[in-house]
Amino acid sequence: MERSVEVNQLVLPHIARMEGYVPGEQPQGGTFIKLNTNENPYPPSPRVKMALIEAITDRLRLYPDPSARAFRETAAALHGVEPDMILAGNGSDDVLTILTRAFVGDGDLAAYPNPSYLLYSTLISLQNGRAHVVPFTADWRLKADDIIRPGLKLVYLANPNSPSGTALPPDEVAALAEQLPCPLIVDEAYGDFAAHNCMALPKTHPNVIVTRTFSKGYGLAGIRLGYLVADARIVAELNKVKDSYNCDALSLAAGKAALEDQGYLNETRSKILATRGRLTAALRELGYDVPDSHANFVWATGGKPAVETFQQLKQRNIFVRLMRYPDHAPGLRISVGADAEIDGFLKALREIS
Amino acid sequence: MERSVEVNQLVLPHIARMEGYVPGEQPQGGTFIKLNTNENPYPPSPRVKMALIEAITDRLRLYPDPSARAFRETAAALHGVEPDMILAGNGSDDVLTILTRAFVGDGDLAAYPNPSYLLYSTLISLQNGRAHVVPFTADWRLKADDIIRPGLKLVYLANPNSPSGTALPPDEVAALAEQLPCPLIVDEAYGDFAAHNCMALPKTHPNVIVTRTFSKGYGLAGIRLGYLVADARIVAELNKVKDSYNCDALSLAAGKAALEDQGYLNETRSKILATRGRLTAALRELGYDVPDSHANFVWATGGKPAVETFQQLKQRNIFVRLMRYPDHAPGLRISVGADAEIDGFLKALREIS
Repeated sequence: MERSVEVNQLVLPHIARMEGYVPGEQPQGGTFIKLNTNENPYPPSPRVKMALIEAITDRLRLYPDPSARAFRETAAALHGVEPDMILAGNGSDDVLTILTRAFVGDGDLAAYPNPSYLLYSTLISLQNGRAHVVPFTADWRLKADDIIRPGLKLVYLANPNSPSGTALPPDEVAALAEQLPCPLIVDEAYGDFAAHNCMALPKTHPNVIVTRTFSKGYGLAGIRLGYLVADARIVAELNKVKDSYNCDALSLAAGKAALEDQGYLNETRSKILATRGRLTAALRELGYDVPDSHANFVWATGGKPAVETFQQLKQRNIFVRLMRYPDHAPGLRISVGADAEIDGFLKALREIS
Repeated sequence: MERSVEVNQLVLPHIARMEGYVPGEQPQGGTFIKLNTNENPYPPSPRVKMALIEAITDRLRLYPDPSARAFRETAAALHGVEPDMILAGNGSDDVLTILTRAFVGDGDLAAYPNPSYLLYSTLISLQNGRAHVVPFTADWRLKADDIIRPGLKLVYLANPNSPSGTALPPDEVAALAEQLPCPLIVDEAYGDFAAHNCMALPKTHPNVIVTRTFSKGYGLAGIRLGYLVADARIVAELNKVKDSYNCDALSLAAGKAALEDQGYLNETRSKILATRGRLTAALRELGYDVPDSHANFVWATGGKPAVETFQQLKQRNIFVRLMRYPDHAPGLRISVGADAEIDGFLKALREIS
């Protein structure tokens, strides 16, 4: 190739134009209070660690099961569905990528709410699709009429939603799905912390696809595992899109063990929900507007100036997430950490002028 | 959604039309000789296992480093390049997926040789691109004139090639790259077994992208890790396409430890190359046509009927890979296993009528 050609010009124009998704900061060492990417403050179940150690054998020289059968059977039993309704992914981001590649073609229209998970916009852009951004109402609800558009190919719904922590009840999600001409992804990354979920819908509503992750409720962000539940005919198509060996042998073993220890999940969830209540009350007392959260974070607006507060917290090695969305003032999304972390955060917040 | 809509019709038409890539069989237990997916017969380095065990801590609740910095620095030092010339992926399949999504848009033309890695065809189809299939010459070389076409956006070159095991020398690859109007992926999945490689080319030829995997030379197919080396400006664009957390904390730790133990790599490689020589000679003695292999497998054609031999071997719990390519008679690709496995295979092959 002639050296004069700019190598940047080799990439597809719609990718060259993109900014790329920016994940929350991941400081790699030092002492800090990390409340910025909604990790679980509690470690994974001891049974998960045992399963991982048992999986470190000479068998790592072999490819993992490309169909993730043992993992899918465990997940299927937990949710009361058939294993062929489940697809495993390298984190729920991989699952969302697979779904977007399956349903959104060049120039196609896909909808997501605002403010919500910013990755949806990135995924649509990577496909050179067109985004239809649907505003939440003031009380964090959605109107089907605002979503439905001619030629709509896919709808993303984070439920519970980030950053708000709010969740639509399953009957409203079902009603929405019935009106849509396309698949509805119900992204339940935070479903483990919610009072209700939509896991029953794919059996009755074949255009509903529910996604889950091990990064939040199960405290396993480091291993990258997620899955979806959908109509088996949809899963068969999605299997063509995923990388054959998208899940490694260790994460599949860890995920299976995590699902098998629902007692541990319940125990850590109870602690997180208690801390969430305390954090919500304290922030409201400080003058913040905080919606009732169904997730392991809270969304705080309307108190002290968000940008300055974010920066001053960071100077004290306290990381929260400063979020900016179209048509909204910046706000702070604060993960529900351990009690001591939340105490440290609240103390600092009170000290900040 | 109206129940009458067939859910299969929701997926993109070009995906509905696809067959999907079929990976080699991964039997999950039992006693067998597995020579069908080019896994390393030797386990990963003991240092890798130590690194994995050390990484099983409470920190698994945290996201991995999305930039894989520590891993990239180790790989960069090994190859004599800058860390920003490296991108890590969830196996080299993930790396190839990222590259295809970055360079091949709807309707775009991408070229790959035949017979070669069948995944290239799948990756192009997933992008709704058009494949330009370039025949190898009888002596497993390629002519630039056969490859270059108007509007060509990407060329894949498995080097060493599968199934042949043959490899183009770096000067021929460089000459090809200089004539291409687009990026050239040099897929060195089997580079650890070759007498030469193209790792020096990205520094002088900014359209050359070299990909590597830990699945073959390092005996870590189970952990899913690969990487690429390319011009830093290309890597910056590719970072927009990859999932933020595409590599998990455990595989990154394992990969770093594996790269740091080049002594172990050399030791296991020597054994494999010795066995490869013995396998090649034995197959030729049995009347097979076997090109000199630069990989950890050999390609056998022209001996006993391939389909029948494959089936009879399978009945004896010996798995090799029956490969079918356009314009070629079926052949057998046989991974270089441990000596006892190859002895078992050769004994069975001699017994088969």
